[in-house]
This record gives sequence, C-alpha cells and structure tokens, in this order.
Amino acid sequence: MKIGFIGSGNAAQTLGRSLAKAGHDVKLGARTPEKLNAWLDQLHQDERVRVGTVQEAAAHGDILFNATPGTSSVEALSDVGSQVLQGKVLIDIALPLDFSNGELTLAVANTDSLGEQIQRAFPDTKVVKTLNTVSSAIMVNPQSVADGQHDLFISGNDANAKRIVTAILKESFGWESVIDLGDISSARGTEMLLAISSRIYQSRGNMNFNIKIVG
Amino acid sequence: MKIGFIGSGNAAQTLGRSLAKAGHDVKLGARTPEKLNAWLDQLHQDERVRVGTVQEAAAHGDILFNATPGTSSVEALSDVGSQVLQGKVLIDIALPLDFSNGELTLAVANTDSLGEQIQRAFPDTKVVKTLNTVSSAIMVNPQSVADGQHDLFISGNDANAKRIVTAILKESFGWESVIDLGDISSARGTEMLLAISSRIYQSRGNMNFNIKIVG
Repeated sequence: MKIGFIGSGNAAQTLGRSLAKAGHDVKLGARTPEKLNAWLDQLHQDERVRVGTVQEAAAHGDILFNATPGTSSVEALSDVGSQVLQGKVLIDIALPLDFSNGELTLAVANTDSLGEQIQRAFPDTKVVKTLNTVSSAIMVNPQSVADGQHDLFISGNDANAKRIVTAILKESFGWESVIDLGDISSARGTEMLLAISSRIYQSRGNMNFNIKIVG
Repeated sequence: MKIGFIGSGNAAQTLGRSLAKAGHDVKLGARTPEKLNAWLDQLHQDERVRVGTVQEAAAHGDILFNATPGTSSVEALSDVGSQVLQGKVLIDIALPLDFSNGELTLAVANTDSLGEQIQRAFPDTKVVKTLNTVSSAIMVNPQSVADGQHDLFISGNDANAKRIVTAILKESFGWESVIDLGDISSARGTEMLLAISSRIYQSRGNMNFNIKIVG
C-alpha cells in the first residue's frame, strides 16, 4: 500500500522502515527532508523509504499516519489541508502530552480526546486511533513482549477503515490481538492510559511493557 | 483488624462480608442503618458485620474504607470530620463518576484526582487509593478471573499505610499482584482507567475482566 507519514520523528522512522520491509510504498513527510539523509543512509535495502515534504508525503499515501506531536497535530494537519486528507484513512498515533505545568498531563482528556479533535477538524477523513498505547519499539515488534500475548486497541467511526488498519497491524507488524473499542470517542480511553503507563514507566525504568485484558 | 466503612452500598457490603469472613471486625456506616436489616439477615454466620451510623463506623475502624459515591466523597468525609479520620488509614475505592452531560466521564481527572482531593482535604489521614479498577465481585475474588493472574494497583503518600493495605488485599481477598504506582497523585492513573474499562464493558457486556501488565 502507499503509506504517507505526517511527521518524521522516531515513531515515523520506526514505523516507516517496518512498513517498507513488509512491502509497503512508504514516504515520510518532514519539514526539512535533508535532515533525514544520514538516517536513510543506514537503512537496509529492504527498509528503504522515501522522504519528502509533509505535503508530498500526504499526497503520496492512500493511508496516512499522524506522527506529529499531539499538541500541534491539528495545526500540522491543517497545513496539509483538508482536501489532501479527504477520503483517506488517517492513523492517529499521537498523544497530546502537556508538560507546561511541570508535570506530565494530557492537553485534552476525559470529555474529549485528540482523536476526536482531529476527526472534528477533518470530517471527510477516516480517523483511526491506534498504537498510541505502546512504545515505538513495541508498535512494530509486539513479539518482543510476552511472546505477543497482549493487546492493542483501535478506535474510529468508520468500520471499513478500522478493518484496513487492523489488517496492517496484524500482517505488517504481527499484532495478534487488536481490540475494537468503538467510535473515535473511545480514543479517550487509550489516550488516558498515559496516566497509568507513565507511572509504570517511572517505576520500571523502561517502556518494554504493555497491558493485556484478561477474563 | 477493626475496619469501618463510610458508605453501605454494594461495594461496602461485598467488601464488608468478605473482610468479616477473613476475621476482621467490620462495621458499615449507613445514613439509615435499619435499611440494611434484610441484607444482614441473609448473611452467613461467618460473614457477620455490624451496621451503624457513618459516625459510628468511622469511630470503630482503625482502617477505614471510603465507599461513598465519588462525587460526594469529600462532603461525606467532611461530615465525619477530620478529627475522627486523623491518623487513620483511609482506603479510597471511589470513582468520581459524572453523567451530567449525558455520557460517562470523570468529575475530576488528568491534572487532579479524587484520591488527591481527599488527601488534600484530610492531610492527617493516610489516604490509599486501590480497588477502584475492578468490579466489587473481583475486588474480593480475584481468582474468579484468569486464575488471579492480573494486577491491582495502589497509590498513596504513606509507605507503611500501603504495606498494611497490601497485606489486607493479599491475605483477606487473595490478590497475588499489587503494583505500587507511587504517591497519591498516581491515583489519576487508576481513576482514568475508567475511560477504557467502560468501553470494554460496553463491548463485552460484563465486568468480569481486569488488566494485567505484561513485559
């Protein structure tokens, strides 16, 4: 599939090379594409992705990833423009992290979520929230934790878009369990997991964990 | 141990009879104690608890449970009075559920929590947040789900109070894994789990599940 990334940071790089290896045609969208040259040079042949402007990456992908910082995602996507995003599946992996008052909180939570904000801003785009509950290393290698016996969650208003994304998660990354939480408002549930996972991270000292629903 | 309950609803009843069975001296505190007579009559001999006013139950317990509705907990505890609560361990199992705008949200979240509100209101009481992430049936019978292989969390500022409460959770209810998340501000993490557990409840149709940290 043709996959474009809005954003080119660590998560975009990790997901992009993994998707390329799985056979997808990937373009990362960066504000300064040249800055990724050194990173591109060290990729294996089968992990090759292309890098372009954010606008080029957005035009390239039939499936797009929002891999921008959560607190500036709506602005970054607005720069791309609703016409380019129209009709496309947008996989939102961002978290609206807010450190402004000296502790880690969410810029939006409880009665709203970043996933909903993006869906409201781009009503003709199929926003699917997923992957936002684990580290980028686990996103592309769920088998690295507990033999893959743990859960990923997915939220979105469009059932077909969720099916497409679930297939990518399972086939390209190896996720065994992808739990459909419902419409995009259920993104509140996964975004708000930050409050507990950040504490677990603090006490463990690493992000090599995930949650599993049992029962 | 002498254990008192602020509140006498379903959770207090379930926890109270289970604690009595484990050998504790339990008193539930009700606004109208007589209303619990029918319930008391059907308890087995070894599950016998006493019922009194909220004030009596608070005076009785060396360990107290806050089992009032979360949105009125601070008020209910203020009625008991900070002097009665002084120096005691208060196990806060409440969730500040807010249905006022037609959907289930939290009355406080993200930058604060009910656990913290109670701790701030009663600085001389040792507030320990726990049990708020599972149904009352699972609270007292963790073995009913996945052979007990799942996690409970605990938050609080006083290490010794957390040790006492952890011992009760393990010895009286059979919890095998109680994860210390840190100080009382980590109650945000467990209270905010409501956003995802309510969605899982909606799709499963039952509350016979819990989460497990794997990795």
